[in-house]
Amino acid sequence: MLLKSSLIRAVSQTKGVITRGYKAKAKKIPEFTQDRYQVSRKSFAAVTDSDVSQFEKTIGSKYVVTDSEELLTHNVDFLKAVRGNSKVVLKPGSTEELSQIMKYCYEKNLAVCPQGGNTGLVGGSVPVFDEIVISLNRMNKIHSIDEMTGIAVADSGVILENLEKSANEHGLVVPLDLGAKASCHIGGNVSTNAGGLRVIRYGSLHGSVLGVESVLANGTVLDLMSNFKKDNTGYHLKHMFIGSEGTLGIISKLAILCPPAPRAFHVAFVGLPSFDAVLQTYLSAKRQLGEILSSCEMMDKDALAAAIQHFGLKAPIDDYPFYMLLETSGSNADHDQEKFNSFLENGMEAGHIVDGTITGDPGKMQEIWKLRELVPVALIEDGYCFKYDISLPLRQFYEIVPVMQERCGSLAHRVCGYGHLGDSNLHLNISCSEFTPEIYKRIEPYVFEYTSKLKGSVSAEHGIGFLKTKYLSYTKADNAIDMMKEVKNLMDPKGILNPYKVLPLN
Amino acid sequence: MLLKSSLIRAVSQTKGVITRGYKAKAKKIPEFTQDRYQVSRKSFAAVTDSDVSQFEKTIGSKYVVTDSEELLTHNVDFLKAVRGNSKVVLKPGSTEELSQIMKYCYEKNLAVCPQGGNTGLVGGSVPVFDEIVISLNRMNKIHSIDEMTGIAVADSGVILENLEKSANEHGLVVPLDLGAKASCHIGGNVSTNAGGLRVIRYGSLHGSVLGVESVLANGTVLDLMSNFKKDNTGYHLKHMFIGSEGTLGIISKLAILCPPAPRAFHVAFVGLPSFDAVLQTYLSAKRQLGEILSSCEMMDKDALAAAIQHFGLKAPIDDYPFYMLLETSGSNADHDQEKFNSFLENGMEAGHIVDGTITGDPGKMQEIWKLRELVPVALIEDGYCFKYDISLPLRQFYEIVPVMQERCGSLAHRVCGYGHLGDSNLHLNISCSEFTPEIYKRIEPYVFEYTSKLKGSVSAEHGIGFLKTKYLSYTKADNAIDMMKEVKNLMDPKGILNPYKVLPLN
Repeated sequence: MLLKSSLIRAVSQTKGVITRGYKAKAKKIPEFTQDRYQVSRKSFAAVTDSDVSQFEKTIGSKYVVTDSEELLTHNVDFLKAVRGNSKVVLKPGSTEELSQIMKYCYEKNLAVCPQGGNTGLVGGSVPVFDEIVISLNRMNKIHSIDEMTGIAVADSGVILENLEKSANEHGLVVPLDLGAKASCHIGGNVSTNAGGLRVIRYGSLHGSVLGVESVLANGTVLDLMSNFKKDNTGYHLKHMFIGSEGTLGIISKLAILCPPAPRAFHVAFVGLPSFDAVLQTYLSAKRQLGEILSSCEMMDKDALAAAIQHFGLKAPIDDYPFYMLLETSGSNADHDQEKFNSFLENGMEAGHIVDGTITGDPGKMQEIWKLRELVPVALIEDGYCFKYDISLPLRQFYEIVPVMQERCGSLAHRVCGYGHLGDSNLHLNISCSEFTPEIYKRIEPYVFEYTSKLKGSVSAEHGIGFLKTKYLSYTKADNAIDMMKEVKNLMDPKGILNPYKVLPLN
Repeated sequence: MLLKSSLIRAVSQTKGVITRGYKAKAKKIPEFTQDRYQVSRKSFAAVTDSDVSQFEKTIGSKYVVTDSEELLTHNVDFLKAVRGNSKVVLKPGSTEELSQIMKYCYEKNLAVCPQGGNTGLVGGSVPVFDEIVISLNRMNKIHSIDEMTGIAVADSGVILENLEKSANEHGLVVPLDLGAKASCHIGGNVSTNAGGLRVIRYGSLHGSVLGVESVLANGTVLDLMSNFKKDNTGYHLKHMFIGSEGTLGIISKLAILCPPAPRAFHVAFVGLPSFDAVLQTYLSAKRQLGEILSSCEMMDKDALAAAIQHFGLKAPIDDYPFYMLLETSGSNADHDQEKFNSFLENGMEAGHIVDGTITGDPGKMQEIWKLRELVPVALIEDGYCFKYDISLPLRQFYEIVPVMQERCGSLAHRVCGYGHLGDSNLHLNISCSEFTPEIYKRIEPYVFEYTSKLKGSVSAEHGIGFLKTKYLSYTKADNAIDMMKEVKNLMDPKGILNPYKVLPLN
């Protein structure tokens, strides 16, 4: 038992440190979104002093932020790609306060931008103009964790890592893990249907989230909570709030099913000669590691090189065109190790795996995970990074990387691919010294046209947010987009919830 | 490999035979629903000869059924609890034909009742009055099964067992298994968000179904298909069709994620002295069997007695107040057996498990599964059976059974409980010689009031259908029901899709 909990903690801490370490660095503040992307403000009311006084009465003046320095952290996103111009951030402390804020905003036609940990990558979590930011970070109570059923009930502002720690104390794990875990909120994860590293094992949040409480545009509190895995009483409305990025309601509370914590982890890092070998290794892992496979990540040599260069890491094996990080987690260390060793031996015999290292040691696993987890942030360190997370047919998963390398030529510093192979989810990253319209136009919309041609998804997990609204139609049928608009109109007739996001602007 | 496929087939066949065997038996035809439950017909048009001619032109006269004997099988449900009075059954052969039918019905204000395998238990799959039955059974093509990604694409009318067989041939399993698998359609399963025996391992259909194609009330074909595990492009509308029981659209096609087929199965049947011992055993199973636990079923002595009596089975162990059936499935038989044996030994040492048998032999596992799978049908053999499937807090899971025993007294033949313990899902069954208003009133609404008091769900997996519409409010908040009505009105403004179902009638 000691091994288990110390191990989980070790892994969690690594992941946490990565994000925190990165966020502390000063980066260039981008120009205003309205200028860079030429958007027109919709006819919402502008916040007045009288509105601010009313908010102070409702939630207390301490929680109504108008200080320009603090405002900036809420107006700019993690990637420094977008910048809003909000004049006020509200920090409600309860569902009731959140409901009162929304009721007031609805009556006054004031637009709002709900914000969790502000770790989103598509500009969904910051305002576009002067929308009021509603930060959920004070709504951070874990209400209950039931060891027997595995169900955790938490406010939406609980930081993912904190929920994970509490779950661990009950012998459980949160079925979601991602690099930003030290900052992101579970409510934000659910609002954006976050994916991350454990989807291959525990599936998507649509399967794990059992209930949500959501505050609608007009302040109505919609109670769709459930303490049960199964509840077939009428329409499954909660799914409307999972992945709609705060445009249909603001999730205030949720129930999530947490699986039993594994007792043993093992991690392997292997080098492969070709993408075909990567695919064969994935297929073998699914078959031979079956129920204990908990991560199946790939990255190319350029992706790994970025992490090594910017964070002074050392690769545990020689240079290869492709690398994979495989993780198993199970209830018996000996059994898992036997399966893992046998899988690796078979892979080496078949020539798919050329070199590799496997470990069950917490410290060493942590080192290996760093190689994968630091890639996304390392690429931002290049200067500016265009990040695409697309779903593609596995057999054509990697084709787009060399295509984009050729297309960007010397405009790009690095064009590389990594991602969640087990979910057909490629993170295509193109880094350069700074954002220029020239490289932007070289990349978009081409990258989405290419994805669309392969019937892929233009957003596997990051969402549409602000940055991808005009590309929604590359994946979704016209009548599906029409239906989305009708649902939006039904639930938020004034359009005050996170405007300019998800749905096409025109 | 031989072991794996022969084993899967053996188990599937058992389950299939049960349903087929049962359905062949003649049962008393119930009175019309409109008389027994006193419902008022809504002002839809009635089908005319001219409508029938039009349907014959659209899909061919062979597929427009007006023969009274065949109509009866579509008008009466599996439980013989409800009976509609439809004059015509349509069997479209494609999405295009289905779309044309709906377009016509929408224009003419003709109500329809979509029907899959007609194995539902809440009267959702048969008409209440003279709604046109739309049978999906000709739309039964499996379009593709991708061994590498595990994604199967199938028409909605594919019989679950057939999809399972095809998945097995590709080294995969369908993440859903239930007693009616030889008759039920995958489209019906998705429309009703069916649960069944594998939820504990593979989760709910909201997690497994990756995409649906749905024909709306006005004939619009809404393409929400996806060939990917991850697709975060806009609202996740497909979930509106999962579990809405054909009242928002008719699912015509779907994509479902199939996990790798396990290579080894083991089944244990154990006797326990108390319900507390059942709970402790469940908790230990979750912890000790972890990732290989694939079923965790419980039943009380009266439930088992029904199966033994009506089907001449023999219990493999002595009489105990409670029984559990536990199944593991994994990728290494030796590992699984070692874990399972150790778990059983620990349970016996702790005194939770008094007696038991474990096997990995396909024939013996089949015999054990029969003990559980024949319970639901055996209870119908008593004459008439009131079936409730409710979600309850695990610690109070069984309390309702003795309460109902006392309440029904000699009016009931048997009051017993069994179900999916791992999902907090109790099947409370009350059998009697025939339906009488007296026992009906003794049971309802009391059973739902009791469930509501414990904040349980009045329908864990069967759905609301026709029989439970008036009990929806026992689980769902008023404003959630209002929102459901608004969604219904948005997607089916004339209310022609499966009327009198899911939403409260008044």
